[in-house]
Amino acid sequence: MEKPTLPSGTRDFGPAVMAKRQFILNTIRTVFQAFGFQPLETPAMENLSTLTGKYGEEGDQLLFKILNSGDFLKDVDGQKLEARNSKQLSFAISEKGLRYDLTVPFARYVVMNRHEISFPFKRYQIQPVWRGDRPAKARYREFYQCDADVVGTNSLICEAEIILMIKDVFKGLGIFDYSIKINHRGILSGIAESIGAERNENPLFVAIDKLDKIGEGKVREELRLKNFSEESLNSLFDILKTQGSTSNKLDALDTVFEKSESGKKGLSDLRQVLSLLKSYDANDDHVEFDIALARGLSYYTGCIFEVKINNVGIGSVSGGGRYDNLTQAFGAKENISGVGFSFGVDRIYDAMEELNLFPRDTQVSSRVLVCHFDEDSMRYGLSILTKLRAAGIGSEIYPDVSKIKKQLDFANKKGIPFTIVIGSDEIKSGQLALKDMERGEQEKLSLEQIIQKLK
Amino acid sequence: MEKPTLPSGTRDFGPAVMAKRQFILNTIRTVFQAFGFQPLETPAMENLSTLTGKYGEEGDQLLFKILNSGDFLKDVDGQKLEARNSKQLSFAISEKGLRYDLTVPFARYVVMNRHEISFPFKRYQIQPVWRGDRPAKARYREFYQCDADVVGTNSLICEAEIILMIKDVFKGLGIFDYSIKINHRGILSGIAESIGAERNENPLFVAIDKLDKIGEGKVREELRLKNFSEESLNSLFDILKTQGSTSNKLDALDTVFEKSESGKKGLSDLRQVLSLLKSYDANDDHVEFDIALARGLSYYTGCIFEVKINNVGIGSVSGGGRYDNLTQAFGAKENISGVGFSFGVDRIYDAMEELNLFPRDTQVSSRVLVCHFDEDSMRYGLSILTKLRAAGIGSEIYPDVSKIKKQLDFANKKGIPFTIVIGSDEIKSGQLALKDMERGEQEKLSLEQIIQKLK
Repeated sequence: MEKPTLPSGTRDFGPAVMAKRQFILNTIRTVFQAFGFQPLETPAMENLSTLTGKYGEEGDQLLFKILNSGDFLKDVDGQKLEARNSKQLSFAISEKGLRYDLTVPFARYVVMNRHEISFPFKRYQIQPVWRGDRPAKARYREFYQCDADVVGTNSLICEAEIILMIKDVFKGLGIFDYSIKINHRGILSGIAESIGAERNENPLFVAIDKLDKIGEGKVREELRLKNFSEESLNSLFDILKTQGSTSNKLDALDTVFEKSESGKKGLSDLRQVLSLLKSYDANDDHVEFDIALARGLSYYTGCIFEVKINNVGIGSVSGGGRYDNLTQAFGAKENISGVGFSFGVDRIYDAMEELNLFPRDTQVSSRVLVCHFDEDSMRYGLSILTKLRAAGIGSEIYPDVSKIKKQLDFANKKGIPFTIVIGSDEIKSGQLALKDMERGEQEKLSLEQIIQKLK
Repeated sequence: MEKPTLPSGTRDFGPAVMAKRQFILNTIRTVFQAFGFQPLETPAMENLSTLTGKYGEEGDQLLFKILNSGDFLKDVDGQKLEARNSKQLSFAISEKGLRYDLTVPFARYVVMNRHEISFPFKRYQIQPVWRGDRPAKARYREFYQCDADVVGTNSLICEAEIILMIKDVFKGLGIFDYSIKINHRGILSGIAESIGAERNENPLFVAIDKLDKIGEGKVREELRLKNFSEESLNSLFDILKTQGSTSNKLDALDTVFEKSESGKKGLSDLRQVLSLLKSYDANDDHVEFDIALARGLSYYTGCIFEVKINNVGIGSVSGGGRYDNLTQAFGAKENISGVGFSFGVDRIYDAMEELNLFPRDTQVSSRVLVCHFDEDSMRYGLSILTKLRAAGIGSEIYPDVSKIKKQLDFANKKGIPFTIVIGSDEIKSGQLALKDMERGEQEKLSLEQIIQKLK
C-alpha cells in the first residue's frame, strides 16, 4: 500500500494552524457583522454555464470541472471522442465546476433571489475557492476568500465603511503597519483622456498597475510596444509622479482633469469618501491615494481599493472596488450596482507568521488537564471535570491510567496551560494541586478557588 | 441568456438560514472545544487513491470525480476511449475526487502526521461533504458533517464523554425530547453466537438494524431467505424483546451470554460506561440501551451510538462508535483505534424547524439602524454609528437619503430590532428617538442612555 498523499496545491490545517486561522476568520466575521453584513454560503459546485466566460479565457482553463455522475460517456458523440479534443469533450462529460471565486456565485444568488432580497443588501461570504493554477509558494489550489459586498446603492458611505472595516480588522489582528491604497476608475479614465489614450485604456491600466513591481522603464517599454507616443508617456509619468498628501494630489489633479468628466467624478468621489470619514470621527491614517493603482479587473467603475501590509514580502492582502453591473452577465434586466472587497486569509496568515503577530494564546485547547495516579483518582477527577465545565472552563482528563510525567508532557504538547494532579491526599483533603504549566508554579487550592482563578 | 440555476441537490444558504445554521454549528463547536477537541480541516479534494475502496462499491459510484486539468486526453490509450467504458475511462482522466465523508480524510491525516501527533488525539472537523446520491427530500449532494473522534486510547471515558457531549449539545440547542441509543458490537456478536449464527453476522446485523422501520415480520422474512432456521429466529426475537430498564436488560443478557466472550465484553463495557457517567455526577437520562441497534457500518468494534429526536419524521441525527483499525486501509503498521461520532447538521436543522425550536433572535444582523431625514442628519448619524460600534453594538445606517417609512421597512425586513431616527431637532437637543421595532414603542434618550440600554 502506497503512502497516502495530498493533491498538490492543497493543505491540511492541523489544530495549531486552525487556531490561528480561526483567529483571523473570527476577527473578520465579527467586524463584518458589526457593520451589518449578513452571512451567505453558496455550494462548492456551480453549473459550468454559471462559471464559464466570467473569468476570461485563462480563468476558464483554471476551473476545476466535475465529471458527470454515472455513465457519462453514454450520450457522447463518437466523433467527439475520436477527435481527442480535451476542451470540447470536457463540456460533453462535465456539467459542473468548483467555485472559482465568491463574486460570481454571489451575482447568481442575487439574480435568483432578487425579488426576496431587501436592498441595499449587505452580504459577507467566507468560503474556500478552487483554481487549477500551477502550485507554487503561497499559491494554492484551494484557498479561502472573505468577501463583503453591498449591492443596490450608490452611496459612498459604503466606500467609507470599507475603509473603516479594514481598519477595524487590522486593529483586531494586531497589524498596525499597513497601507490602504485607494484610487478611482474615473481618475484612470481621466488620465487616459488627458494623454489622448481614451481608446487604449486597457493596455494602459494593465501596464501602470505593474509600476510598483517593474518600475517606470519597463512600463514605458511595454506601452511603447502598444504604440503610445513618447509625448503621451511623458504626460503620463508627469501625472503619476504627483507628490504630496492625498489632498495635495487631489488638488493637483483638478487642473489635469479640467476637461475630463470622468476625472472630475473620480476626484469628487474620493473627496466625498474622505469627508465622510471625518463625519465618522475617523481619521484617514493608513489611507493613501495611489494614482497608479489600477487592479487588473476591468469591471470596476468607481473607487478601487488595495491593502498592503508593509515590510513583508507578500503582495496585497485585500482589495476591491465599486462595480456597476454585477448581474448583467446573468441577464438581469435591472443593473444592480455595488461595492465590495475581499480579504485574502492565506496571505494575511503568511504575513502574520512572518511578522510574528499571532497572539500566544490562539491555540484552541482546554484550559485544564486533570491528571491522576490511579483508577480511583481518575474517577474522582471526573467529578472535578464536570464542575470545571459547568463553570465554563474547557477541560479534559487524561483518559488512561499512566505515568504523571507522560500526562504532563501531553498537556505541554497540546498547549494546555494548567494541570490539576489528583492523588489520594487530594481526594481526602479536597485541596488540589493546580500547576501553571508555563511558569512551572504549583499551588494547593480548593476546587472553588481554582474555578475563581481560571474564570 | 438563460436564467441561472443551482446544480441539483445543492443549496444556497441565505442570511436567515445561515443564522440558524451558525447557531447549530457554534453550539456544537463550543461543546467540542470545552471537552478538549481540537479543530482539523482537510482539503475538499482528495486523491482518488485515498477515497476509492473505502465506502464499498456503492460509495465509489457516488464519489464526485474531478477532471484532470489541461489536456486530460493526451496520454489516454485510444482503445480505452473507443471502449466507451465510463468507469474505466474515469480513472484515466481523473485523479482527484471530492471528500465523501470526514473519517477517511481524518485517517489519512493521522497516517501522514502520526509522528507529530501527541496521542490520545482528540480532533473535531466541521466541513461539507459531497455525494452523488439521487437528490430527494432531505437528501442533498452537498451537506455538512460535524465529527469528533478520539484516537489512540481504549479508555471508555471517551464513550462516556460522547454521551455527555451529545447531552450538552442538545441542551444548548434547546432540544429536550430525544434518545441516545447505545449498543455494543460485542452484544451483537454475542447474540449471533447464542443463536448459532456466528458465521452469518453481516446479514443478521443488517436485518435487525431495520427492525425499527420494517417490523418483526419482515425481518424474519429477510433472515429466512438467508437460511436462518425458525428456531434461531425465535431465540433471536426472545433476546431482542428483552424488556425493562437498561440495567434490567443488561442483567437479563448475563444469562444469555454465559458462554460468549464477545457478549460478556459488550455487557461489561456498557456497564462501565454507565458507571463512569455516575462518576461525572451525570445521570443516564435519554440513554437507552437498544439491543437491536446495529448501524450499517461493519467497522465498529465496541460501543455504538445513535441519536434520535423524538416526535419528528427524521431518522437519526447523530451516530458513531468505536473502531479498531482506522488507519489500516492506509497501510499503517500500528493499528490506531478510536471512537468517534458525527452530528448531521442538516437533519438537526430540519428537526428544529419542524419543532419550531430555533430561538427568535438567531438572525445575524445589526442591533440598530440609524435613520435620517436628509444629508445633514445622515452625516450626524455617522458619528452616532461610530460611538455605537465602539460600545460593541453592531449597527448600520441607511446609506441613501430616503423616506423614513422605507428605512423603517428595511429594518423590519432585515430583522434589525432597534432604530434611531435623526432629524434637525435631534441634532439640536442630542435627545435621540430610539424605537423598539417589535413593540412599536419609542422613547427619547441621550446616546449614552441608548448605549446603556442596548449593551
